[in-house]
Amino acid sequence: MKVVIIGGGAAGLTTASTIRKYNKDIEIYVITKEKDIAYSPCAIPYVIEGKIKSFDDIIMHTPKYYKEKKNINILTETEAVDIDSKEQKVKCVKDGEEIILDYDYLVLATGSTPFIPPIDGVNLEGVFTVKNIEDGRKILEYMKKCKRVAVIGAGAIGLEMAYAFKKRGLDVLVVEMAPQILPRFLDPDMAEIVQKYLEDEGIKFILSKPLEKIIGKERVEGICVDKVVYDVDMVILSTGVRPNIELAKKAGVNIGKYAIKVNEKMQTSINNIYAVGDCVEVIDFITKEKTLSPFGSTAVRQGKVAGLNIVGREAKFTPVLNSAVSKIGKLEIAGTGLTAFSANLKRIPVVVGKIKALSRARYYPGGKDLYIKLIFGDNRKILGGQIVGYERVSERIDLISLAIRNGLTVEDLYLGEYCYCPATKMVNEPISLAAEDALTKF
Amino acid sequence: MKVVIIGGGAAGLTTASTIRKYNKDIEIYVITKEKDIAYSPCAIPYVIEGKIKSFDDIIMHTPKYYKEKKNINILTETEAVDIDSKEQKVKCVKDGEEIILDYDYLVLATGSTPFIPPIDGVNLEGVFTVKNIEDGRKILEYMKKCKRVAVIGAGAIGLEMAYAFKKRGLDVLVVEMAPQILPRFLDPDMAEIVQKYLEDEGIKFILSKPLEKIIGKERVEGICVDKVVYDVDMVILSTGVRPNIELAKKAGVNIGKYAIKVNEKMQTSINNIYAVGDCVEVIDFITKEKTLSPFGSTAVRQGKVAGLNIVGREAKFTPVLNSAVSKIGKLEIAGTGLTAFSANLKRIPVVVGKIKALSRARYYPGGKDLYIKLIFGDNRKILGGQIVGYERVSERIDLISLAIRNGLTVEDLYLGEYCYCPATKMVNEPISLAAEDALTKF
Repeated sequence: MKVVIIGGGAAGLTTASTIRKYNKDIEIYVITKEKDIAYSPCAIPYVIEGKIKSFDDIIMHTPKYYKEKKNINILTETEAVDIDSKEQKVKCVKDGEEIILDYDYLVLATGSTPFIPPIDGVNLEGVFTVKNIEDGRKILEYMKKCKRVAVIGAGAIGLEMAYAFKKRGLDVLVVEMAPQILPRFLDPDMAEIVQKYLEDEGIKFILSKPLEKIIGKERVEGICVDKVVYDVDMVILSTGVRPNIELAKKAGVNIGKYAIKVNEKMQTSINNIYAVGDCVEVIDFITKEKTLSPFGSTAVRQGKVAGLNIVGREAKFTPVLNSAVSKIGKLEIAGTGLTAFSANLKRIPVVVGKIKALSRARYYPGGKDLYIKLIFGDNRKILGGQIVGYERVSERIDLISLAIRNGLTVEDLYLGEYCYCPATKMVNEPISLAAEDALTKF
Repeated sequence: MKVVIIGGGAAGLTTASTIRKYNKDIEIYVITKEKDIAYSPCAIPYVIEGKIKSFDDIIMHTPKYYKEKKNINILTETEAVDIDSKEQKVKCVKDGEEIILDYDYLVLATGSTPFIPPIDGVNLEGVFTVKNIEDGRKILEYMKKCKRVAVIGAGAIGLEMAYAFKKRGLDVLVVEMAPQILPRFLDPDMAEIVQKYLEDEGIKFILSKPLEKIIGKERVEGICVDKVVYDVDMVILSTGVRPNIELAKKAGVNIGKYAIKVNEKMQTSINNIYAVGDCVEVIDFITKEKTLSPFGSTAVRQGKVAGLNIVGREAKFTPVLNSAVSKIGKLEIAGTGLTAFSANLKRIPVVVGKIKALSRARYYPGGKDLYIKLIFGDNRKILGGQIVGYERVSERIDLISLAIRNGLTVEDLYLGEYCYCPATKMVNEPISLAAEDALTKF
């Protein structure tokens, strides 16, 4: 049996590794346009910042490693250009030469492409997106001759990049269309805490306004926002991604509202074609609506599910909360599930609990502020959570995600069993305190 | 209405504060033998270590604060000596004077007393237990003239004290009857990691052997273990606690197998008498057997439940996992639910998943080793977890506790939704990796 996987990101490689873990015989091929594999695009801002020394450090494994340790064949700098799903063949091109690979199972892990706003100047020298390691290398080189940078889009990657440039000594201006930063996973009140922190670090913000155009002859000289021109030498477009579905269309699999349609086994409309990662659409756990989940964590989870199903072990990919975390400077920011803002848009009645607590007992040295906001439905069930702090944030969001998935109520979280030690906790777990705040409002 | 609470620890004060949060009119009296209230006994070792500067720092609030901010009356250095549950009166003694308090509701939060092994020498000068702030103050004074200390009992408090003395320059010998340290919440393989760390810090251990006697004329001069004499100047007895149930017996409430019997509302066999904290017995979530849960976290949870029920809001205290965490030096150690060792004793068949992972992405600076062990029943459900690491341990144990309580399976934990950012996590959450290890064994 032979499995061909198109895409060498987290989704594709996790599928490959999962198959190999349970089956030693299946032939596995991974095709990727890129030169590098097995790196985390989420790490790019930290290399720009200098926190991680070089881009080579973030490459976890080489094709040689995959061949020797896992007997997985990786074809780098190879583009899959067509799929014949009847004949079960993939046409690829490498160095101008055509390669035909036949398959028993095909896995589409084609990822996504940065969205480029349809405005003037996006093709000027000095305009970058932050998607792959090559982008990172180019930015690192180009920034040496820059003094001022504009980051368009105040999502996690945009803010991580903004902070990185600031630490490297550049003047940084962030432009965001929404009236707040991090609109996808924080409410305005929680986003303000983060914005204040970044402003204190010297980063400037323009909110509620779109980028109108990028100005320059050959290279970037400025940007225009709300008819005002700002002089900058470099522009980072961090305005979201769009799923890559062209190959899927050629294969003839069904496309849904946003991306490739898959069932809970990660199977497309064609039985022996699976799809995983940024190129598929998923179901939102709270609203039950179709949505996208372009996160490394989702890619890994889907790769595991696809891999298990391909080797004949049943596994299901369940609807997502789009739980996410970002570390910007000393600040750790995370969210999961519904925000109060999006609940309001969707006319879902909610009760909010909010607390400013500490990460350790009050008297234990090193404790830091910890802000927690919990969103409950009017049936008392937890629907979402947001945490901003300096330590111990990620794992609390994972706990809240688990609570949402298991239908826990405000009482369950208030009276939950939490361990305690003054060096690592308050005796009243902050999640319990936030739930208590909500409880008084029911 | 008038509530009298006997005991000024976490259980008693949480009951008082919870009542006040929901009812402004109830008269509340808290009686305590001690001079200080509202401090965390768990913090004592960190003051001894010098990590926290003084015992005054760990006192969160004064009786004056409770009176002024919460209208809660605290009678310090006052001993409740008898209870007439028919007449609904408590007889107290303060400075030799008798005080009679009548009540509508009585809450027994009488705590526990350190267990003193029945051996020679326990009354010598230089023998201490670690229970209240006075113990701490005496130890801090006495250690000034000591060079060598023996800590009897390798539970969390014992080891925290051992580390504290070592940091203060004393030679430290730990004596434990069990063949491993931390026998209550770690399996031997996980305990070894902790022991190795403490041995590297210079602490010596004698395992599998009981303390035979303490030697000395007026003050401690040595201890005898397995017929060998070890010269020490001070002995810390950290050999567990026994519930204080004498007053409960006088009140006539039912006593169970180990301590005061309560229902899930924290009500004793007499309707208007509640009991909370170390003096009550609880139900083990896994085995459904009666057990004790002498933890600050449990005390707080029980105080909330008792308080809510007293003000007429329904709340239930659910069976315990006895989830616990300790920080010793740089090491954070936590456990919840069943260990493989205790499963074996109880003939519960289990499957174990174990992983050595990292606390951050491999390439992100500052990541540290993280050891996770998960225990699953043969029905694939999670029954217990143990984590040893240097950061981000407590919250993961809370997540595992939540998973146990909600009947999650090995697949649920393997394919759970975990957030990701290289600065705070591996893209493969270590809990998922430990579950994966177990999955391959089913």
